[in-house]
Order: sequence, then structure tokens, then C-alpha cells
Amino acid sequence: MAFTFQINNSLIFKHDEKLLAKAEANRPQIIKTQHSPVRIVDIVEDPAWLGGWGPAESEKKIDDLSSYGCKRDDTLVLDFGDHMVGTFKIHIDQTGSPMDAPLFLRLKFAEMPEEIKAESGDYDGWLSRSWIQEEFVHLDELPADLELPRRYSFRYVELKVVDTSPKWQAVFSDPVVTTESSADPASFSPLQLEDPELQKIYDVGVKTLADCMQDVFEDGPKRDRRLWLGDLRLQALANYATFDRTDLVKRCLYLFAAMTTEEGKISANVFVKPKNVPDDTFLFEYSLFFISTLYDLHQAHPDLELVKELYPVAKGQMDITLKMIDENGKLITDDDYPVFVDWSNDFNKDTAGQAEVIYCLKQFIALAKLAGEKDINRYGEALKKISLYAKDNLYNSEKKLFVTTGDEYNLGSQVWMVLAHVLSDEENKKIMQSTIKNLFPVKNIATPYMYHHIVEALFEAGLKDEAVRLMKEYWGKMISLGADTFWEAFDPDRPGYSPYGSPIVNSYCHAWSCTPVYLIKKYL
Amino acid sequence: MAFTFQINNSLIFKHDEKLLAKAEANRPQIIKTQHSPVRIVDIVEDPAWLGGWGPAESEKKIDDLSSYGCKRDDTLVLDFGDHMVGTFKIHIDQTGSPMDAPLFLRLKFAEMPEEIKAESGDYDGWLSRSWIQEEFVHLDELPADLELPRRYSFRYVELKVVDTSPKWQAVFSDPVVTTESSADPASFSPLQLEDPELQKIYDVGVKTLADCMQDVFEDGPKRDRRLWLGDLRLQALANYATFDRTDLVKRCLYLFAAMTTEEGKISANVFVKPKNVPDDTFLFEYSLFFISTLYDLHQAHPDLELVKELYPVAKGQMDITLKMIDENGKLITDDDYPVFVDWSNDFNKDTAGQAEVIYCLKQFIALAKLAGEKDINRYGEALKKISLYAKDNLYNSEKKLFVTTGDEYNLGSQVWMVLAHVLSDEENKKIMQSTIKNLFPVKNIATPYMYHHIVEALFEAGLKDEAVRLMKEYWGKMISLGADTFWEAFDPDRPGYSPYGSPIVNSYCHAWSCTPVYLIKKYL
Repeated sequence: MAFTFQINNSLIFKHDEKLLAKAEANRPQIIKTQHSPVRIVDIVEDPAWLGGWGPAESEKKIDDLSSYGCKRDDTLVLDFGDHMVGTFKIHIDQTGSPMDAPLFLRLKFAEMPEEIKAESGDYDGWLSRSWIQEEFVHLDELPADLELPRRYSFRYVELKVVDTSPKWQAVFSDPVVTTESSADPASFSPLQLEDPELQKIYDVGVKTLADCMQDVFEDGPKRDRRLWLGDLRLQALANYATFDRTDLVKRCLYLFAAMTTEEGKISANVFVKPKNVPDDTFLFEYSLFFISTLYDLHQAHPDLELVKELYPVAKGQMDITLKMIDENGKLITDDDYPVFVDWSNDFNKDTAGQAEVIYCLKQFIALAKLAGEKDINRYGEALKKISLYAKDNLYNSEKKLFVTTGDEYNLGSQVWMVLAHVLSDEENKKIMQSTIKNLFPVKNIATPYMYHHIVEALFEAGLKDEAVRLMKEYWGKMISLGADTFWEAFDPDRPGYSPYGSPIVNSYCHAWSCTPVYLIKKYL
Repeated sequence: MAFTFQINNSLIFKHDEKLLAKAEANRPQIIKTQHSPVRIVDIVEDPAWLGGWGPAESEKKIDDLSSYGCKRDDTLVLDFGDHMVGTFKIHIDQTGSPMDAPLFLRLKFAEMPEEIKAESGDYDGWLSRSWIQEEFVHLDELPADLELPRRYSFRYVELKVVDTSPKWQAVFSDPVVTTESSADPASFSPLQLEDPELQKIYDVGVKTLADCMQDVFEDGPKRDRRLWLGDLRLQALANYATFDRTDLVKRCLYLFAAMTTEEGKISANVFVKPKNVPDDTFLFEYSLFFISTLYDLHQAHPDLELVKELYPVAKGQMDITLKMIDENGKLITDDDYPVFVDWSNDFNKDTAGQAEVIYCLKQFIALAKLAGEKDINRYGEALKKISLYAKDNLYNSEKKLFVTTGDEYNLGSQVWMVLAHVLSDEENKKIMQSTIKNLFPVKNIATPYMYHHIVEALFEAGLKDEAVRLMKEYWGKMISLGADTFWEAFDPDRPGYSPYGSPIVNSYCHAWSCTPVYLIKKYL
């Protein structure tokens, strides 16, 4: 995720070399696999597809690729048949008179067809133009094997001959993608579901997760390409339900643990290339989710030694949070350490944040017991006080809804209070029923991250049918619009919405959207 | 040179491996030298410069280069102080927050400042866009040493940061050009002239020649980058007057000789990378100039063995030409084998072509004698007949001018008839005096190639002052407009004229313009 920029570049971070060595020791092997395109397509207007552009089988045949001479402004779109994360190479020769000028070639890599149609020159959004997957290459001599050094995330590759000369044409052959992932499809058996719609959602979720599993859990292999802690928490849960690479989760936990600020606070994300560097961005619950991720790992694969080793870092997060609780048990939020919940800033997040503290504090107490924390009562008392504040001051038992600052009843508050199990199961069900009645249909929410928590809250409240319905409406709609992998952002009411002003920098394979694989396995 | 495209790609060419091996054996060593920029400049409006754009010392200092953080759309123009042909590398790092997006960088290489200002996106000329010296590079990780693999021809390098992210800036250091040339400045002593204007013209001519001397005599190191026979003839003459690399001339002659058509005709140009390939373009006198170049080489460095070895190829060209002479001695020109003389097609070239035959036939007869040609009388008789036709049918002794088809008196006819010494020295002087009176000032001629022949004809006719005056007017004007090397095309009446519709594909270092170094040494 990324929506607003924080700049705190004067901060000093620790680098715990011992923990970084463990992160290195848990670096997974990257599995590489070669793929050839399945067909040549034309990108045509098609209202069924996202953005109104879909692929149509071209008159040109992939088996005849090397018979097509391409001159100035000619294009070919190769369709690799599914989402790919990897490197690209192609053999290029020429036909006609001798090559009396360089070949100037543009290559565009697109996860969705509409990206091919978007002109990069028109892009003027606030996110870096450098994310646009477009390369310009001059070749002075042909034949040549063009091997691009960068990794791309795509299904379609557009080859555009910017120019040859009037005397000769470029000829392409042997396009090959070498995909990269640390997820081994051979290592697990996908679920076989009776419901074909759910099966499709599950399969696309598995593909999404696999393509984000690199040498860390990346948030998106096209854009951002880094390890975010909030996303890690969800990826780890989906991972246990599928490929189950514990080493990769451990590696990511070690990376966050090794590089806190001097006061012990964990960054929202870290970079690992060319060296390990924590970002200077901080999100309130992302720091706290270090606790959740450690807790979830121990649930999936008990590892007392690891819990004890990382417990001090987990405790650091909780201690920083508890300093933000006032004498009444209320979380006093801080704009410089914002509660995230969702990209939208159109709803108040104080109550959701309060619930997230409770959610994580419960998990923290479980870890504290395992670690033999002497001061454990302090955390038990804090939990009581913070929960009590929520029940007494934030819950409207008539409406069966939690209020937040400004007398506002919003979805985030309900969802997180239910997930935190602040009230009884019976009460939680009523809350979600009231939520459905008063706050559904979901409006102005564009993140699969938030949709995940809504669906999970419905499951947790025992509203399985409603949970499945919402999952199908949301993730199923992405599939009907052409998704091979699930997206970073999607608002079903505004399918063309991009938080960046252009689909060309959207990420159409984004880890926080892969969670149906976890939800389906856990609840269905 | 290149102005119209011929496509004859069904032709079959010989590849004489023995001659190609000799071409290979004469491949010169490329001398590589490293250069750093001398300053950072801003490209500013300046009517004194070609195209109205000149360089001005920037407030940014080259010694402080690594202190400038560059964000989206920031540019830096490095001035290397003189024309360079070579590769470019630079160290790039970043400052600010961690690098949360790739660096997207555009690099533009410009021989003249106006190229920096021309937008490549606006270019829609008929010449390939691939010649525009502009690269787009994504770097996923910094610091990095960016070493571009291609060779460029330039004095100025514009670094434009297309994007970083709002959180960090790119930082540049250690830009280095490694120049490439087979001309060794240490191998000859430049002339020291009393006239500073001529000295400057001479020096820029030497630089022009040196930068075109690569592993063949290239016509232009920026654009075309190949061996043209008509240009070779002039480069070889300039070479004998300066660096005197006989091996390079021999190499080029062997290349042309090795790859004729099946009937023995020599292409106007050949390519040598990635392998030796003759172009399918033919120009009438370019084929004939194989004779001239061999003749001139023997004059500069007598080599009877070489003359005998290549004589059959030279003879092939003359025999093809003599078939184009009618029974009266008149050259019957052929649109598929055009007489060049100059780019302009606004004047008739029949008489100039007739003169070129005479010019080359005289040289051929000298070679034929050396080679022991048995049939030599046939060529002597042909020379008589063709010369006689010119004197009797084309010369107007009242006007002291040669006419050409369509009752046209043009510059090309006079210049080439004088160079061919068809009439006496006394008559030649009168012809050039009449030319000055009737056909000067030179109009609508944009090639230094044609200007060279005009100046040489003035010298040959004994009109030294007029020759020097024209040389200063033409080549001197390029210098006053900012030339570090002489240009492919220049019409003093229209300084901004480009045969390609944009300066961005003009070649501002072009071998056929280097000839003042030969003219000054020979005639002054």
C-alpha cells in the first residue's frame, strides 16, 4: 500500500546484524520457469473488460511470428496466457535491404489490456512515472538477442517498432519469459471446491499470492515491490493456507525486527535491494501487526524459540502504543503515526484504531505468556481498561453499532470491533447484522484490504452466507472484468477508478487482495 | 550522404573472401581516451548560434556536480568542451528518503545546442527516428554505474530526471566519455597558418576528419556511420594531408572491391557491423570514384602491387560506364544509377556526369598503364571521343560556359569540366571567371561536398583569392554559428535548413566537409 508520502529522513535506525543474518539465512530460493506466448492479440474496445479494452485473437498467428516484418509504428501484442512475473527476452532480426539505421523499439508490459492503450506521455499523476513498465531500446546491429535486465509484472507485451528505416523491417522470434517466484506450485495441492465461482476466486487468489512471493513477500510485483508489514500479515495467513513457506515469513519478521528506530518503532515497510533499508514511513497498526504476524506464525507452526527471540521487538510496539492510551482507556491518535484501516480518509478511524489495539493486545498477551513476561499483569489491566472504554463509551447498544469521534457510525469501527471480539459472539452477530442493515452496500471503499476485514468480520460473526456473497460480489467482479490476479485497488461502483489518476501505474497483482485463499480455507 | 532510398534487395553480391581477409588485416587499432565535462551549461536563446540556441555557463558548477539532488523534470546539461565520439558512463546515487521507486532517466546527446531543444516526439521526418541520440533508462537500484553500451557523437549531454519519487532525488557524479578514433593526434603535426581564420577552419577540419576515422572512414559518427565511396575519396585525400593512415584507406578499398554485384558494379556504400554487407544503393560516380581513390592512394604512397591487385575491379567500373556512352561520345544517364554531384535535384547533371567520366578515365588510363593493360588504346580512344563530344557539343565558347540538357548553364557542369581539365588551363580560368560572373553567389547548394568541388575548381583554375574567399564564407560561417566539427549539410542562405525536416537527425560532424585540410595543404 502507499497513498500519502511521509518524509522522516533524519531518523536514525538500528541495524541488528545478528537478526539481519537470520533474515539472510531464511532467504528463499527463487524458482525460475520459462514461458512462451500463447497467441498474438489485438487490443480492442470491449465494454466487458476493465477500462473498456480487451484482447481479441489477432489475424497474425504466434506460430508465424517470425514471418511478420515490422516497420515504423507497427505493433505486435504477445499474450502469455496468464499473469507473469519475470524477465523477458526475444530474438530480433531484420528483413529487406541491409540495416541502414538502428532499430528503435518500445516494449510495454501490461497486466491488463487497458494499460497497453494508456499513453505514458499523458500520465501526470503524483506517483512516480518510473513505475510505468515501458522500455525504449536502440539496437545498432541485428540479429540480436534482446534480454532486458529488469523484472516485469504482466500478461501482455506490446512490441512497437518506433522506427527501422524505409528499407528494412524488424523480425521477431523466440520471445521467452523466465518467471520468478519463491512459491513452488508443486509444494501444495489446491483446494477443489464445489462452487465454480469460489473455485475461480480461490485459484486467482493463489496466483496472486504466488506472484507476490519473491525474496520477500512483495506487496505488488509491478509497483512498490517491497515488504509492507500490514500486507505481510495477510500474505502470511494466505501462505499458511497454501504454499506454507515458513522461512519466508520468518525472513520478513527478522527484517522488520532488525531495523527499528532508536526508540524501537517498526517501519511500515522495508527495502532489501541493493541493501536492507527501513523506510521512513510509519503506520500505527502496521507496527502493531508485527505482534499479529508473530502470533499467527506461532499458531500455524509453533516455534517457542522464535517467539522468545522476537518478543522484545513485539513488546516495543505494544509499549509505544500503550503510551498513546489516556487515563480513561481511550486511544489518542496521532496524525504523524496514522491509523490506516483503508485508503479512504473520508471516515474517522479513532474507534477502528481502538479496536485494533484490543485485537493486537490480546495476541500480545498470548505471546507474553509464552515468553515468560514478568510484568504481564500490566498488559492484562491495560486490555481491560481499553476494552471497557470501548464498551462503555463507544458502543451504542440500541443501534448495535460503535460510534467514533464526531458521532459517526462507520464500517471500519464495526468491522474491527468485531474482529477484536470486544463483545460476545452473540453481540457481534447483531453488530454485523446492524452493519448490513445500516452501512451496506459498501460504498467508497477501494481496497481489497478493507474488503478482507469486512468479509472476515462477517465470518467471525457467524454470517457465512453474507460473507460469501460479498466475497463473490467483490473478488468475483474483478474476475469478470478480466483479472488474472487480484488488484491493489478496486471500487465495484467505479471500476475504472485509480488512486493514481491512471491505470498505467495501477498494480493489478497486489498481495493484500489474495486473502480469499485464507478465508475460504478457514471458514468454508 | 543519403537523400533518396534505393531498394534493390534481390541483387546478388560477390563476397571475395581473400580481399575481405585483407580488409580485416588492415583494420586499424581504435585509440580510446577518457574525457570529463568542462562545465555545466544552460541552453539559452542566442541568435548568434545555429538554430538560435547556444550554451551559457550555468550557475551550477561542474566541480559541485554531486551536490545537486535532481527530482522529477530536473535537467543538467554537461558540456565536454569539444566534439566527442565515444561511450558515456556516469555514477548515480540518491539522496533523501530511501529509494521507493525506480529512477527513470532520459539522456540526450547533442552535437549542437539546438538538438537539446528539439523535442524528439515532434519529429516526423522521413529519415529514421532511430538516429535521434536519446536513451531512456530505468534503474531499480542505486547507487549504480550507468555505462551505456552504444557509441554517440556529441559535445553536450543532457541528463533529464523523468522521475524519482517525491521522497528522494538523484545525484550524479563522475561522468566520463571514452572517445574512439583510429586517428592518432600524436602521429602528425598540424599546419601552423598565418591567417587565424584559415587556421580555425583547418583545425575544425582536422577534428572532423579524426572523429569520422573509426574502423572505416565513416561518413558521420552520429548518423549513417558507414563507409560511402564518394566520401571515402575526399576523406582519403584529407587523410594523406594529416594523419596519413594508409592502412585505413586500403581497408576501405578492399571492402568495396570484395563485394561487387555479379556484373562487377560497386555499391555506393558498405556496412561492416555485425558483418560485411554491401548496400543495395548505387550512384554513378561513386562507383567510378573507386578508380580515383586507388589513383590518389598511388599518388600519395606508390604501391604498384596494390594497383595491380585492384585494377580488375577498377576496370569493371570503367567498362560499365563506357557502355553508357553513345556513339557520339555522350553519356546517357540512367535514373536507376543516378549521377549525384549534389543533393539538389534542381539542376541537370548530364554535363557534370560527362565531366566526371573524363576525370576518372584520365586516372584510369594512368592505372591501366601501371597494370600493363593490353587493351589500353581502347580507353585512350574513348577519352578522346568523350572529351571531344564535350568540347564540340557542350561548350559555349562565347559564354565561356558548358551547357547541359535543357539549355541549362549550371555550376556543377562548369566545376566538373574544370576539374576534369577538358580544356586548357587558360580556358579553365575563363570558365571559372565566367562562372563567378554569371553563377555566383552560390545558391541552393547545401552540401560541403559540392562546395569542396567549387573551391577546388577555383584553385585549379588559378583563382586562389576567390577560392579562399569562398572557403572562408562557407566553412567560416559554420564556425561562427558554433561548429566544433563541420556539418553534413549547410546552406549559408538558410542556416537552419535540414534536409530531414529537423536538426535532431542532422549530422554535425560529417566527413565530406573536412576537405579544407586537404585544400589548404595542397593549394596554400
